Amino acid sequence: MTIAIYGYGNLGKGVECAVYNAEDAQLVGVFTRRNPESIKTLSGAPVYSAADLQKFKNEIDVLIICGGSATDLPVMTPALAKDFCVVDSFDTHANIPTHFENTDQAAKQGGKVAVISAGWDPGMFSVNRLYASAILPDGNDYTFWGRGVSQGHSDAIRRIAGVVDARQYTIPVQATLESVRAGENPTLTTRQKHTRECFVVAEEGADLLRIEREIKEMPNYFADYDTTVHFVSLQQLQQEHSALPHGGCVIRTGATGMHHENKHCIEYSLKLDSNPEFTASILLACARAANKMYLRGETGCKTMFDIAPADLSALSPEELRKKML
Amino acid sequence: MTIAIYGYGNLGKGVECAVYNAEDAQLVGVFTRRNPESIKTLSGAPVYSAADLQKFKNEIDVLIICGGSATDLPVMTPALAKDFCVVDSFDTHANIPTHFENTDQAAKQGGKVAVISAGWDPGMFSVNRLYASAILPDGNDYTFWGRGVSQGHSDAIRRIAGVVDARQYTIPVQATLESVRAGENPTLTTRQKHTRECFVVAEEGADLLRIEREIKEMPNYFADYDTTVHFVSLQQLQQEHSALPHGGCVIRTGATGMHHENKHCIEYSLKLDSNPEFTASILLACARAANKMYLRGETGCKTMFDIAPADLSALSPEELRKKML
Repeated sequence: MTIAIYGYGNLGKGVECAVYNAEDAQLVGVFTRRNPESIKTLSGAPVYSAADLQKFKNEIDVLIICGGSATDLPVMTPALAKDFCVVDSFDTHANIPTHFENTDQAAKQGGKVAVISAGWDPGMFSVNRLYASAILPDGNDYTFWGRGVSQGHSDAIRRIAGVVDARQYTIPVQATLESVRAGENPTLTTRQKHTRECFVVAEEGADLLRIEREIKEMPNYFADYDTTVHFVSLQQLQQEHSALPHGGCVIRTGATGMHHENKHCIEYSLKLDSNPEFTASILLACARAANKMYLRGETGCKTMFDIAPADLSALSPEELRKKML
Repeated sequence: MTIAIYGYGNLGKGVECAVYNAEDAQLVGVFTRRNPESIKTLSGAPVYSAADLQKFKNEIDVLIICGGSATDLPVMTPALAKDFCVVDSFDTHANIPTHFENTDQAAKQGGKVAVISAGWDPGMFSVNRLYASAILPDGNDYTFWGRGVSQGHSDAIRRIAGVVDARQYTIPVQATLESVRAGENPTLTTRQKHTRECFVVAEEGADLLRIEREIKEMPNYFADYDTTVHFVSLQQLQQEHSALPHGGCVIRTGATGMHHENKHCIEYSLKLDSNPEFTASILLACARAANKMYLRGETGCKTMFDIAPADLSALSPEELRKKML
């Protein structure tokens, strides 16, 4: 199958790596709204202007859209789904129903398949919430994130006056995790689930106490959490905090039996060195599924809930049953 | 949807509990090859003779076949798949391709849907091996079972002369688990992955040393493992070892990046108080999927690889996207 990448940030680069290492996929190129000549790809893949995309309509099996969820994807995905099978990683949970409707209409109109909200959350974490709740309807589930870098929280710190750069780690509270795993079904406040650790580079002479207070009191982002702030040098930040690790887990505990007497715990967990590269690997698997569904004559918008696992694999159904079942 | 249970051992009882507690399923009854009057069900559900099953053809949406994989299911499932949508838990990994072919032919002939090899291994563990390998093609996966009761190994001990009863636990080797999680990609012998712990009730005056030696030297079952044998009283066995806990985990570690420089670890783990009740809960979720696929006009044999996660849930696609994505 042939893949094209639309947008070349961290996620686009991750998709490039995944396609480069895949045996069943070939990269047509990277499409960008910037000046194509300003971009040098990791693999040497060609870079084209986004304005020229339509010229490649017959050469691209699946277009992987690597834009942001805030303003890019709500517009891009429905617009492109008319002419291409597409995959995106739209992750604004509350707006998924609207994004689904818009994309579904466009994809059906064009006779294409669009997979939205692929990745690990939404994505594999969602799929695991679904499997676990279908198996154990009498139960509770919990999602924890981290230890990992939150780009949104890092950005929020950078907007504070006197801050040069920052990196924020989200960390699950270990004692809470243990209580959940033990089936104690705790009712948890935001503060009980995660802590936040910030590494901040301040301008010379900046009021560090004020910056720390502004971080810790920032509504939505930090006020509801126990937050630790470390001031570090720019060099330290670049040397020790330039990677984008992440991870987390989805846990469901529940009961079976006539009198709910038997307890069970299902846990799915991820430890990732590179959040964008792992997400990109899932997008590529979903591109494979989109292509298979399209070739079978299906159309419209899908999420990972609608994709049979076999469609994500490069192996045939016979091989899968023989080797993995 | 209406469910019937074919075969009333531990698994059949588990399905009965799952249906009893499900909001979208109703139990037509239990069908048995034994004398129906000899069976009293947990929920008071009616018991019928297996010979009368055809009379209920129009009342049963899905028949869950709770027979053994050795001799029952290879015959039962293809025979019943002609007239009923069926689900089974066939777990002899090596014979799945043949069982699939036989059942596929029968189900297609009758215009029905059959789901085979549902459960947790094969089943949810297989699904997790598939997802993880599709996402991280450059990697290795490992499956560990336990701590849990292996019925096959318990039965093998019971066949030794002088043994009254026995219970065998399979236990993963903790140090090996940690090495796998750390991404060390160890090549493992059977002995390095699991140990076996046996609780044995011997006849009065039996030669305990001989029994212990016969267990530890038993080919296939114990000879390749570090095995511990404890002799206990019948009362102790019944009090402390009558439950059927199980569990285990599927771990895949792999790399992404142009130079495979970023490592990732995906883990799916289960801790189960009751192996048969948990397996039964998965069978019921698969029955739901079989019914949905049948109503959409699909036919033939399926495994959990072919089931889109949404089909396992009692919630609508809209609700799922809103609540779980």
